Amino acid sequence: MRSLMNITDLSVEELQSLLDTANDIIAEPRRFAHVCEGKKLATLFFEPSTRTRLSFEAAMYELGGQVIGFSSANSSSAAKGESVADTAQVISCYADIIAMRHPLEGAPLVAAENASIPVINAGDGGHNHPTQTLADLLTIQREKGRLHDLTVGVCGDLKYGRTVHSLIAAMSRYTGIKTVLISPPELRIPSYVKTDILEAQGIPYMETADLEGALPQLDVLYMTRVQRERFASEEEYLRLRNSYILTTEKLRGAKADLCILHPLPRVNEISVAVDKDPRACYFKQVFNGKIMRMALIMMLLGLDPEGEKPLPVPEKGAKGPKKLVNVLKCANPRCITSTEQELEQVFFLSDEEKGTYRCKYCEAETR
Amino acid sequence: MRSLMNITDLSVEELQSLLDTANDIIAEPRRFAHVCEGKKLATLFFEPSTRTRLSFEAAMYELGGQVIGFSSANSSSAAKGESVADTAQVISCYADIIAMRHPLEGAPLVAAENASIPVINAGDGGHNHPTQTLADLLTIQREKGRLHDLTVGVCGDLKYGRTVHSLIAAMSRYTGIKTVLISPPELRIPSYVKTDILEAQGIPYMETADLEGALPQLDVLYMTRVQRERFASEEEYLRLRNSYILTTEKLRGAKADLCILHPLPRVNEISVAVDKDPRACYFKQVFNGKIMRMALIMMLLGLDPEGEKPLPVPEKGAKGPKKLVNVLKCANPRCITSTEQELEQVFFLSDEEKGTYRCKYCEAETR
Amino acid sequence: MRSLMNITDLSVEELQSLLDTANDIIAEPRRFAHVCEGKKLATLFFEPSTRTRLSFEAAMYELGGQVIGFSSANSSSAAKGESVADTAQVISCYADIIAMRHPLEGAPLVAAENASIPVINAGDGGHNHPTQTLADLLTIQREKGRLHDLTVGVCGDLKYGRTVHSLIAAMSRYTGIKTVLISPPELRIPSYVKTDILEAQGIPYMETADLEGALPQLDVLYMTRVQRERFASEEEYLRLRNSYILTTEKLRGAKADLCILHPLPRVNEISVAVDKDPRACYFKQVFNGKIMRMALIMMLLGLDPEGEKPLPVPEKGAKGPKKLVNVLKCANPRCITSTEQELEQVFFLSDEEKGTYRCKYCEAETR
Repeated sequence: MRSLMNITDLSVEELQSLLDTANDIIAEPRRFAHVCEGKKLATLFFEPSTRTRLSFEAAMYELGGQVIGFSSANSSSAAKGESVADTAQVISCYADIIAMRHPLEGAPLVAAENASIPVINAGDGGHNHPTQTLADLLTIQREKGRLHDLTVGVCGDLKYGRTVHSLIAAMSRYTGIKTVLISPPELRIPSYVKTDILEAQGIPYMETADLEGALPQLDVLYMTRVQRERFASEEEYLRLRNSYILTTEKLRGAKADLCILHPLPRVNEISVAVDKDPRACYFKQVFNGKIMRMALIMMLLGLDPEGEKPLPVPEKGAKGPKKLVNVLKCANPRCITSTEQELEQVFFLSDEEKGTYRCKYCEAETR
Repeated sequence: MRSLMNITDLSVEELQSLLDTANDIIAEPRRFAHVCEGKKLATLFFEPSTRTRLSFEAAMYELGGQVIGFSSANSSSAAKGESVADTAQVISCYADIIAMRHPLEGAPLVAAENASIPVINAGDGGHNHPTQTLADLLTIQREKGRLHDLTVGVCGDLKYGRTVHSLIAAMSRYTGIKTVLISPPELRIPSYVKTDILEAQGIPYMETADLEGALPQLDVLYMTRVQRERFASEEEYLRLRNSYILTTEKLRGAKADLCILHPLPRVNEISVAVDKDPRACYFKQVFNGKIMRMALIMMLLGLDPEGEKPLPVPEKGAKGPKKLVNVLKCANPRCITSTEQELEQVFFLSDEEKGTYRCKYCEAETR
Repeated sequence: MRSLMNITDLSVEELQSLLDTANDIIAEPRRFAHVCEGKKLATLFFEPSTRTRLSFEAAMYELGGQVIGFSSANSSSAAKGESVADTAQVISCYADIIAMRHPLEGAPLVAAENASIPVINAGDGGHNHPTQTLADLLTIQREKGRLHDLTVGVCGDLKYGRTVHSLIAAMSRYTGIKTVLISPPELRIPSYVKTDILEAQGIPYMETADLEGALPQLDVLYMTRVQRERFASEEEYLRLRNSYILTTEKLRGAKADLCILHPLPRVNEISVAVDKDPRACYFKQVFNGKIMRMALIMMLLGLDPEGEKPLPVPEKGAKGPKKLVNVLKCANPRCITSTEQELEQVFFLSDEEKGTYRCKYCEAETR
């Protein structure tokens, strides 16, 4: 039994296997229509997200399975104060696999540690959202024919945008990737993404505030929303907002085979007029998200159209990083450790030189 | 691909075909139990309506299909500001057909224009609710044996009652129909219903405030609720309320084969004691609503028990009415044009003489 | 057609038949995977309860059926003022069986009187919750091998805990049962449970405030939550709260084959450390609850793997207790009679000597 918390939980080979399955599903959906017959997916959405929830549900139905669940915390037992660990154990009696969205970082990991069935992280606060990245990767692979040798621009709120961090982490494992980081100065990418991912993997990157200027060199443009309240001041927002809205005009200088992505929902950061441009791939991305979720559910349940297909057990590294139990206390108020009953505080050594540790659940750093 | 926004989108022949299918389903439900296998209905309810939502869901399950969706806006992405057009495009990646309820008039039409799958209007504010009228028509047809040569009374709030307007529009296409319009003076039917529908189709009508006096001549009585807040004053309400409550006493003068309808939910406008009267047909109407929704889903998906049955493409009229794009602006605050991102303002000429136009989405008139 | 309102609606023989079916399901789940094909369960939850709702839904899916419903009153027509009786009649047009949770006592009985399909009480306020007791009984039977000759401790809030009252009523029908009633003085079991059930059936009982002292003699320990607001004062709460938290320490004196139960959700009344103890049976109880709901749904629908199996019609007693209609008025503000439109006030004579009557719906006593 295995769960998916973070896109990098999957090796490049496992990811390739998911992409291959996804392409098989698109080619012959009928072959997969009964793979999950008699199985149940539980969609435990402690905060609402129609798109992600319905994507999982559509995925399970297209595999012939069933779905139970809830779509917001106030119609769940969480309102009565039940712990995530207990919910996970209860749901293990009802379903075969869980997709969990939770406002607290690390909550799906607590669920995975306590459930007797696989758990998929469907978004834990600002932390991880790996199935969004699966949708992104399938779209790039299908539109560009490859995941290597690409110049990828990411635009908008690079500071808080978890989908951007996750995409960069995933893409940085391929060769020939260059990144262009496009954002207002206030919303630049956090420095640990530059040092720990881009520089660590030798990925060239360029930072700029100029979307229009950056466009011509891009093979992929990943747009995200820039929220008003994230700017230093109202004037700053009014001055800058139009720079980060993608319009047909701005697209004039872009490559003919650019692939435009957006995790959706969009508010106004891409003009509706762009939708008709063949380079707009964000609705294809929605479709691909459903397909990758189908591939993932099958993988975690160890099923394929030919029957059971046990999941290879991941090799354990000789020894993990140094671990502290109940020594440090996580200071992140959005971490599941802040509320969960009798949960141990676990930290892993993240940088021996600096003596920094990261919380096992939310990955927030401390010394 | 075709959608249903308004009962009059269906020709009399198409309506007859739906009624025939409905009667077939009632006679032999098992023949239809697998027609929609592998298909998914999305129930997008931006405001709650248990009855209508569960009717659609039951209909889809009885056809062997599956259902995804949400039951109120606050558990949907609309809370994050997503446009109806985007929601429609996203859901087109997940489902095969949409049933949408929305508080804003015209929202399902925006969905239909953007979805790549059929959309059924399951109620858009006070505007249209065509599947309720389908339920009404099947009930009248089954109870009275015909849709022509009937005296139809409509009672209650005729000013705001969309189900009443829609039923009158549908019935006025049959021969030998007479209508009796029973309401307090404050809640009389709007004059355009009289001029544009009843007079235009040559349907005799009588207006009265006296339910008990009108009852003896009726073949069909359609009751609706009169809300307290719709009266001119509290005294007026207290004085009149009992006149519009149907009781076993008032029914003494009615025909033995009267057919009593109500769109439900009822609050107290029909006494519970009337339920046992064989003339009370409002719970049959609920059952018939499910059956008509089954027939409609099959028609829009082009499916029947013998397999695929492509929908006839409706003939386009030689030329539609004169159209204005982005010239007028809809002043109706309950119209979808008031909120939807980058939506064109479209108006159609409704009366050449008076020079009036109607909004494409909410049909509100302007000059 | 028959419904389940109260655990004692089932005879000991019927209960045994449900337990036998449950054990068959656990032994061979595949035999039951298609029993309810083409049938629909409606889960009408007028107040949220994830655990109970998902248990019913999982049960129906594991029988091959489908599910419609709602998970809170604000996404239902109840918000529009519809009566429970009307909702029951409407849902009878959509589904084959109803599971209803409602905040008002007696609401499921009103539903059962008006529905044309079976209704299961899934919890009506503080009144009854019979399927929880079915879960409890299957767990005791499977863990202890019997339902007779057991010393059963119930601990916590015995005053308001409906699950405790219901378990005691069910167990008191077996031979050789002893009960130990463990609670703070404020939350002692109501005297009618002692006189009408325990003493009437000749069940020995002992009352104590000392959990740790009572533990060694118990075969079964049923824990419930003690809510802060139920104590006489804050000091009292702080003084007593730890006495009613089950810990590994307190368990040292308990029997090796003790069976620990809890209706869940737990807040902190059982330490998480106890979960690993093999005597902790509360998650097995969750699983067993699903299985008993499967058995119950089959029984009420008259179905089993061999096809239709009509339910034996319960024999009517020669004459019921004396009944008063519209003479007394129920004074319980949590009773469904306080809100339901045109519902008769019905009382049954409960004690001829004292001249007391009980409301048919909430069973509150009056003179």
